[in-house]
Amino acid sequence: MRIDDLIIKIKETKCPVCLGLDTAYEYLPKGFIKTGGDNAFKRAADGILKFNKDIIDATQNLIPSVKIQVAYYEKYGIPGMQTFFDTIEYAKKKGLIVIADIKRNDIGATAGAYANAYIDGTNIDGEEVIAFDADFITVNAYLGIDGMKPFIDACKKTGKGIFCLVKTSNPSSGEFQDLSINGKHLYELVGEKVSEWGESLVGEYGFSSVGAVVGATYPEQAAKLREIMPKSFFLIPGYGAQGASADDIVNGFNAGGLGGVINSSRAILLAYKSEKYAGLSFDQAANQAVIDMREDILQSFKRNKINL
Amino acid sequence: MRIDDLIIKIKETKCPVCLGLDTAYEYLPKGFIKTGGDNAFKRAADGILKFNKDIIDATQNLIPSVKIQVAYYEKYGIPGMQTFFDTIEYAKKKGLIVIADIKRNDIGATAGAYANAYIDGTNIDGEEVIAFDADFITVNAYLGIDGMKPFIDACKKTGKGIFCLVKTSNPSSGEFQDLSINGKHLYELVGEKVSEWGESLVGEYGFSSVGAVVGATYPEQAAKLREIMPKSFFLIPGYGAQGASADDIVNGFNAGGLGGVINSSRAILLAYKSEKYAGLSFDQAANQAVIDMREDILQSFKRNKINL
Repeated sequence: MRIDDLIIKIKETKCPVCLGLDTAYEYLPKGFIKTGGDNAFKRAADGILKFNKDIIDATQNLIPSVKIQVAYYEKYGIPGMQTFFDTIEYAKKKGLIVIADIKRNDIGATAGAYANAYIDGTNIDGEEVIAFDADFITVNAYLGIDGMKPFIDACKKTGKGIFCLVKTSNPSSGEFQDLSINGKHLYELVGEKVSEWGESLVGEYGFSSVGAVVGATYPEQAAKLREIMPKSFFLIPGYGAQGASADDIVNGFNAGGLGGVINSSRAILLAYKSEKYAGLSFDQAANQAVIDMREDILQSFKRNKINL
Repeated sequence: MRIDDLIIKIKETKCPVCLGLDTAYEYLPKGFIKTGGDNAFKRAADGILKFNKDIIDATQNLIPSVKIQVAYYEKYGIPGMQTFFDTIEYAKKKGLIVIADIKRNDIGATAGAYANAYIDGTNIDGEEVIAFDADFITVNAYLGIDGMKPFIDACKKTGKGIFCLVKTSNPSSGEFQDLSINGKHLYELVGEKVSEWGESLVGEYGFSSVGAVVGATYPEQAAKLREIMPKSFFLIPGYGAQGASADDIVNGFNAGGLGGVINSSRAILLAYKSEKYAGLSFDQAANQAVIDMREDILQSFKRNKINL
């Protein structure tokens, strides 16, 4: 199961981090070599692929996983989607676990089509092929179980996993997620369901292939969710550029340092622009930013008696 | 504004319908010409594009709009996304309003990337280009206003529109959407917000560029939502293959026959497999199925004193 593979790599690297490749073309350093010629999408997509590969090369020995945000590839059209595909393949070749951050959701039949695309493959004239071969994807559960079942079934078949949006990291996440229903918040009820859906998919380390997105920016809610869903692995966005600190994320983890993977995107991709890393190239700066992030998390773990 | 263009076309055709191009490769008739050679994705994607074009040619004079479900293109990889792009362009060339059914959602910055991809274009080295140039997209509001604002702002800028998931057509849509919060259901609270978000974007016919997805399979809820959100145009899935009848959809419409666009996908794409249309080619069957659907809706309108 990929959830076990992810946990093994987290233990090996002592780094519960996924590097977020939310790579906008504007993030590329000035003077970055541009190929692709007159086609603007191709020029951007080729640049982003080269940048992603350099970032992966510079950080692959430090991290267990990458999270690739598909919106930043869809915006560059077909060449962008090719770069999304190539980035997935490159990261896997380097031994990294790949989380495709796609937040897909739909009614059953259509959710099945998305599951084919990212999890269990598409059957064409009897041949099984897969469009975007991620290890994990993110999904949105607003449509309830019959929109989720195709994803869960595909996970059962392949050993891959999903992370369902439960409590998101953005400022207005409470607008609907914090609504109160008989004394419980909506995000708690979604968390309960997600936990239930994942019960039959628990791996060797006690965590399920059906995980949850829980924003680092809401530490109290994370503590509550950790109680409600003890077997759900958390994908934790919001550290760094979105404002959460390492002490904000400890609530998602057990005493052995397991329970989640913390995403950082802009703070690593754009580390080269920060004063702290002045003089370093973009990939050196990313490398150092990952080392510093890891140290920051491990220090916080130590303060909180968590021993990864 | 595209919402006005859509309404004008609905009045012209007297057909409040969008043809759902949720085209799986298996939907193509046996013996359908297959090009694309050894690459399975290319073979499927080329076949689907040809099928879509034939369906559009056979129905374009009858309908105002198509809804293209991106999941059925993502599952065929890069060639599938090329067919998604080509289908959008072909439908627009034929004068149809294009709804890209993508149900995207994310935090602000990332929602902005999706908005670039589908609504207002991507800036690359000062050049504005657009990845997938739809007239409308569908979105999921679980993340609240700051995940929606980039879409709404892009609509303001371009005159395009969005349909937010409010009450979806699937059997388990009630699992979260029907939860009760101080006497109101979650879908009602989402509906209230969607209505609010669209207030500054109301067009000539009294409907906003910010619309709502309201399933035909839940007529009572549709009636309630019509009251809560009188200026929101409804995208109405669930008619036909999902089991809703024409009488189930009237609650979304005003006495002038405006208020929504009713989607049908499989019942039209696969009409050629039904006994009713035996002997007709797939495109002739689709044509006749649209004529019959329109007649079914107009008869129901008549019974309910609705005069489009």
